[in-house]
Amino acid sequence: MSDYTVVGQKVPRVDAIEKVTGTAQYGADVHPAGMLYGKIVRSKHAHANILSIDTSEAEKLPGVRAIVTQADVQSGRRVFATDKVLYLGEPLAAVAATDADIAEEAAELVHIEYEVLPVVQDVMEAIKPSAPRLHGDATKDGPNRRGIAAQIRKLSRDKETDHGDELRALEAALEKYPDEVYYNISAESHSEAGDVEQGFADSDIVVEDTYVIPRVHQTYMEPHVSVASADSSGKVTVWASTQGPFAIRSGIAGTLGIPLTQVNVIGTTMGGGFGGRFGVIITHVPAVLLSQKTGRPVRVQMTREEEFLDGRPAPGCVIKLKTGATNDGRILARQALAFWDSGSVSGASIGSTIRVRGVYKIPNLKVDAYGVHTNKSGTAAYRAPGAPQAIFAGESQLDEIARRIGMDTVEFRLKNMREEGDEVPAGGSEPRVGYKETLQAVADAAGWWGREKDENQGWGVAVGDWTNGCGPGGVYVSVHEDGSVRIFHGSMDITGTDTSISQIIAEILTVPYENVTITRGDTDSAPYSTGSGGSVVTFTMGNTAKLAAEDTHRRILELASERLNANVDNLELREGAVHIITADPPKSISLGELAAYSLSTTGGPIVGKGSFARQPSTPALAAQIAKVEVDPGTGRTRVLKLVASQDVGFAINPMTVEGQIEGGTVQGYAWAMMEEMQYNEAGNVNPGFVDYRVPTSADLPTVESVIVEVPAPNGPYGAKGVGEPPITPTLATMANAVCDAVGIRVNELPIKPEKVVNALRSNGH
Amino acid sequence: MSDYTVVGQKVPRVDAIEKVTGTAQYGADVHPAGMLYGKIVRSKHAHANILSIDTSEAEKLPGVRAIVTQADVQSGRRVFATDKVLYLGEPLAAVAATDADIAEEAAELVHIEYEVLPVVQDVMEAIKPSAPRLHGDATKDGPNRRGIAAQIRKLSRDKETDHGDELRALEAALEKYPDEVYYNISAESHSEAGDVEQGFADSDIVVEDTYVIPRVHQTYMEPHVSVASADSSGKVTVWASTQGPFAIRSGIAGTLGIPLTQVNVIGTTMGGGFGGRFGVIITHVPAVLLSQKTGRPVRVQMTREEEFLDGRPAPGCVIKLKTGATNDGRILARQALAFWDSGSVSGASIGSTIRVRGVYKIPNLKVDAYGVHTNKSGTAAYRAPGAPQAIFAGESQLDEIARRIGMDTVEFRLKNMREEGDEVPAGGSEPRVGYKETLQAVADAAGWWGREKDENQGWGVAVGDWTNGCGPGGVYVSVHEDGSVRIFHGSMDITGTDTSISQIIAEILTVPYENVTITRGDTDSAPYSTGSGGSVVTFTMGNTAKLAAEDTHRRILELASERLNANVDNLELREGAVHIITADPPKSISLGELAAYSLSTTGGPIVGKGSFARQPSTPALAAQIAKVEVDPGTGRTRVLKLVASQDVGFAINPMTVEGQIEGGTVQGYAWAMMEEMQYNEAGNVNPGFVDYRVPTSADLPTVESVIVEVPAPNGPYGAKGVGEPPITPTLATMANAVCDAVGIRVNELPIKPEKVVNALRSNGH
Repeated sequence: MSDYTVVGQKVPRVDAIEKVTGTAQYGADVHPAGMLYGKIVRSKHAHANILSIDTSEAEKLPGVRAIVTQADVQSGRRVFATDKVLYLGEPLAAVAATDADIAEEAAELVHIEYEVLPVVQDVMEAIKPSAPRLHGDATKDGPNRRGIAAQIRKLSRDKETDHGDELRALEAALEKYPDEVYYNISAESHSEAGDVEQGFADSDIVVEDTYVIPRVHQTYMEPHVSVASADSSGKVTVWASTQGPFAIRSGIAGTLGIPLTQVNVIGTTMGGGFGGRFGVIITHVPAVLLSQKTGRPVRVQMTREEEFLDGRPAPGCVIKLKTGATNDGRILARQALAFWDSGSVSGASIGSTIRVRGVYKIPNLKVDAYGVHTNKSGTAAYRAPGAPQAIFAGESQLDEIARRIGMDTVEFRLKNMREEGDEVPAGGSEPRVGYKETLQAVADAAGWWGREKDENQGWGVAVGDWTNGCGPGGVYVSVHEDGSVRIFHGSMDITGTDTSISQIIAEILTVPYENVTITRGDTDSAPYSTGSGGSVVTFTMGNTAKLAAEDTHRRILELASERLNANVDNLELREGAVHIITADPPKSISLGELAAYSLSTTGGPIVGKGSFARQPSTPALAAQIAKVEVDPGTGRTRVLKLVASQDVGFAINPMTVEGQIEGGTVQGYAWAMMEEMQYNEAGNVNPGFVDYRVPTSADLPTVESVIVEVPAPNGPYGAKGVGEPPITPTLATMANAVCDAVGIRVNELPIKPEKVVNALRSNGH
Repeated sequence: MSDYTVVGQKVPRVDAIEKVTGTAQYGADVHPAGMLYGKIVRSKHAHANILSIDTSEAEKLPGVRAIVTQADVQSGRRVFATDKVLYLGEPLAAVAATDADIAEEAAELVHIEYEVLPVVQDVMEAIKPSAPRLHGDATKDGPNRRGIAAQIRKLSRDKETDHGDELRALEAALEKYPDEVYYNISAESHSEAGDVEQGFADSDIVVEDTYVIPRVHQTYMEPHVSVASADSSGKVTVWASTQGPFAIRSGIAGTLGIPLTQVNVIGTTMGGGFGGRFGVIITHVPAVLLSQKTGRPVRVQMTREEEFLDGRPAPGCVIKLKTGATNDGRILARQALAFWDSGSVSGASIGSTIRVRGVYKIPNLKVDAYGVHTNKSGTAAYRAPGAPQAIFAGESQLDEIARRIGMDTVEFRLKNMREEGDEVPAGGSEPRVGYKETLQAVADAAGWWGREKDENQGWGVAVGDWTNGCGPGGVYVSVHEDGSVRIFHGSMDITGTDTSISQIIAEILTVPYENVTITRGDTDSAPYSTGSGGSVVTFTMGNTAKLAAEDTHRRILELASERLNANVDNLELREGAVHIITADPPKSISLGELAAYSLSTTGGPIVGKGSFARQPSTPALAAQIAKVEVDPGTGRTRVLKLVASQDVGFAINPMTVEGQIEGGTVQGYAWAMMEEMQYNEAGNVNPGFVDYRVPTSADLPTVESVIVEVPAPNGPYGAKGVGEPPITPTLATMANAVCDAVGIRVNELPIKPEKVVNALRSNGH
């Protein structure tokens, strides 16, 4: 680390001042002249046929400027419901008016005639034949199974060609599917390695449990908001609070059937995202439709209630998990059957069910996962999408096995952890990752090996893994006549990524961090950038920034060579100046002087570019230990200690890395202990912060962070994405600690006091 | 021209729609939340000592938020007058208030006690010893002469070193200065080639005249306006209606002593500039000071009256010109002595006096020019700064000589015009320029050779030259997944330059012009760009754009080579797709497909950069012919025909080139016939469009444009800057035509009807 002067240092975030002084421009701060206020008209029922939509009375309200329905969507792509609504709060129309109150009143005046239908909210009910079907016969059984069967039929009818091999492969694939027929299935995913049945047969102990994880909301501070302005040429400008301006641009263009060049997206400062800010239709498309119809800018902003009704939260799920191990602590087999609550649309993070494999050598693994339709809104990503759910199941069950075979749960994990070159169950081989280092680090830091506990106290440990994503990015750099450096790019800052980019460029150009300015462009001006989610930004944009800085470095040496009349090989850039290595007395020229000189050269101003898209990523591990005390009278759990370690590859800014570790751990803690979106036949019944409990600072434990650095081969300076991992183990960490404290294993989150009390009572307390 | 598909075509301007629909954002459209209104407190006298400035009453006015004076300028750099004012309307303080009316009222409530001083407005009076001195003894004689004398004295005192050669050179330099001592001199410039006295002695005819050209205002449609916002970190954002955001940035930072990184300038759409929009202090600095003091955004916007009192118009001047020629039409010598009215500060375009040499072989040339202080505001550039004034003198006098020696005035010019390789009087040798082609083209187009005229009708011809500037610029290009191309840069669009940049990039990347989007960045995000003036933008940014497009082209072929598995040498980009030249059947991949593919490659998104600063420029010529009819009764001149030709090198967009030719010619026409800023002891006496006549469309002649294309070796596609040349010959063209019509040579502009009538009367009409 001592090789570097800017990266690896705790520098203040580039956006610190604008955030704390309130000058940062959020979506709600955008107010173009003549702006109208939009409001979405939403379904009052969780499942109903729409008999009619009558906007005439709303249109008559003074101040109303436009009402749009699906009839206004010329592309025909679904923006609003027309014939049927599938959840409470589903959009049916949108209103634009001269003030927000009028818009709200007008939305109420849109008369909708419903024919109410039976509702299903529980995934285990929804898969039964008796359940109401959200999408009719189209969801009778898994789409893949049906697709394979259809393909077999088709190939069998073709008598001209021999499809023998192909048919045999398809039939083998079909065999893998369970016999049961599930209903309301939106998607499915299956994978298998080894032979689980044999694995279970060979095991000394087999544990089987069902884990239930609730749907939770990302609860970012800033509700969704968009301001759209369509001009008379058809050009649409959208100020959007989004994690992915380029994705939003394509989404708006695609949904509305307008050319990409006619859409410009300006990402506003994000008041939190956590994966929930990638949706296209949610507010952006209604805002654009209203602006197109009125010819004026329109802001559509969700209330907190709308966020709960029609946000895109993290899916809940039910995971049936079975694990077999030997008495000496070797895991032999694991099988998962998961039902993910995808709400009214397909999706949900069903693919993440595979994360039940953890970072362990499991020779036999079988995972079957289904997305299931219920009368809820669709879901989206939430910090390590699907991983906290799957890892909660996996790490809870490991803990249970360790207890039963009487082995230290940390040692049990260490014994089974994969090492470099090991086969990854159902996928590839293991690169060098600090799995054991990270778990050992948290154990050491928490005092695991000499741990003590009083009555009703317990210790829990769990680990969670995530492999950061990687996407495309471009960065431009220019050096100005005062020696300062400007960075221009198009990725949204997500908790410190702009800061890391700035550090990398300051490092390579050997200037003080304070002399670097970073600016984000809109989609018209900036090169393509990947969305800011999936722990991809620092990995992707960090690599891109390095390339841009290196390109700039080359131009600097070339200029200095011209100016100092010296060979490039004899030049060195250090401390913001180019030095002739061989000169005696020393001779150098500062970056500022070079930049000023560049303005009168043939080659011109110092500019550099970097462009990058793909390099293999490396997995990361988060390991956490909690010590808790459970009050058997109230069922309340108090955290006495919470230590979180993480292999971050290399901490470009240890301060923001710690912030990520603390933030992720705290979100995991909240999911474990208190958060849950509750539904009944009417729909979501706790759409607000009074009934949906998020932790206040009084609720929060202090998180001690431990940074482990096992460099990622392709990361900038060895860095990996750090945002996702820390939320992944916390659900199980807490459940394991509570179990250690009072012997109650809660497999259905959250671990609410009444649940603990009831369990204690039924255990005879 | 047929080699190209986009350049050389008349394409609509990229800003056409936003301009005609009113969506373009001018400075006055910028309205950040909480914005205050600034007003500058101005001197009520043209010359006075300031005894006191009392802001106390103004501060008490409800709604006033801050008043700044020179005491608030911590750097000490002069922003406001303190002890003395030198012209009517000079800034003394500035007020910020919650609305514009309160700000104006408060400005009136700032009490200033004056001691009025004598005023001098006429340059020929100002240079006399009896004139009041604006800057005291500091302006007793020319600064260079004084400087040289001081240096001689200093070197003579140094007895240790022999300064013989140096001293002799300095004494020779001093000898060149005239014996007369001029007062109130702000600057001077001298050049000489050959021996003018000998030249005059060898001449058959010597003509000597004094030409008086008035000060005129650029009369851009949009008065100066700035909105400044200083945040609590000290960062200053300035939305400025400026031709040079980077110059403004340095100017603000330098004036206020704040680091360059703390200033971001956002150039707003310009409502005309013509050289008058480079000033730093004019509204920008007062806006920043007020925002710093109030912590709120502040807009400072000039009224039209303020524009006339405190704008930076084109300098008037008095030029004494003497030319000697032979009877067969060879120019032998020319001598000029010019006094430029620089107002209260130094500057004025005195260096442009050299343009009296025109594009002619003049073996003996001597030019002496002085800037003279008067009680007026300072001056700035106005379309070909100084050239219309000098060329008016030069081309009027040539016309007079041609008349006197009885030679056709076009033939006389053709005979004396320089050719490639000829020595340029007092500077270098001549590149290949279409001087003769351009003059011949206008003569042919106007029907000069077969010209006819009725009574009181006349024909006038003149030529004017200008060499475009060249500055630094940077351009970034990216290609998006729909095959569209984005350009990002930092130069202000000045009548079509963004359009030309877009055409060049579309040409090289072989995409339709419509698929190219161009965006301007602020100084924080864009690479350095030269100011948009001096006909520099198309030359500079056009070359820069070419480099950026070529860099992008390389990346496109590299990607295509990877994707198509073909050698780069076998690939060709045409019609928006890369084709394998040798493939049979044909094989290709579109730019959109390549851009989409790039997002999953190691190399990442398609981005290119271009950077450029200097290449030798090439002169350009404008030649014009007018046919007029003068009403001897009213003195009014009616234009019957006005033809303007110009060597533009290569017309990247013939439509905007014609627009420039027409615009420049019309501005020259107005200067010749009606515009003049009038002053007396009180200051400027016609500060508004009622008394300062600018032509309405009813006043304007139709201009026929003739494009001549003799490629500039270093211009993009051979293009030269086209903005400046067309204004340069029009003043003389009109004077020559009036003279041809009624025999009255008007040497003191403008050619107002009363001047013509009076002259006709004194000639015995």
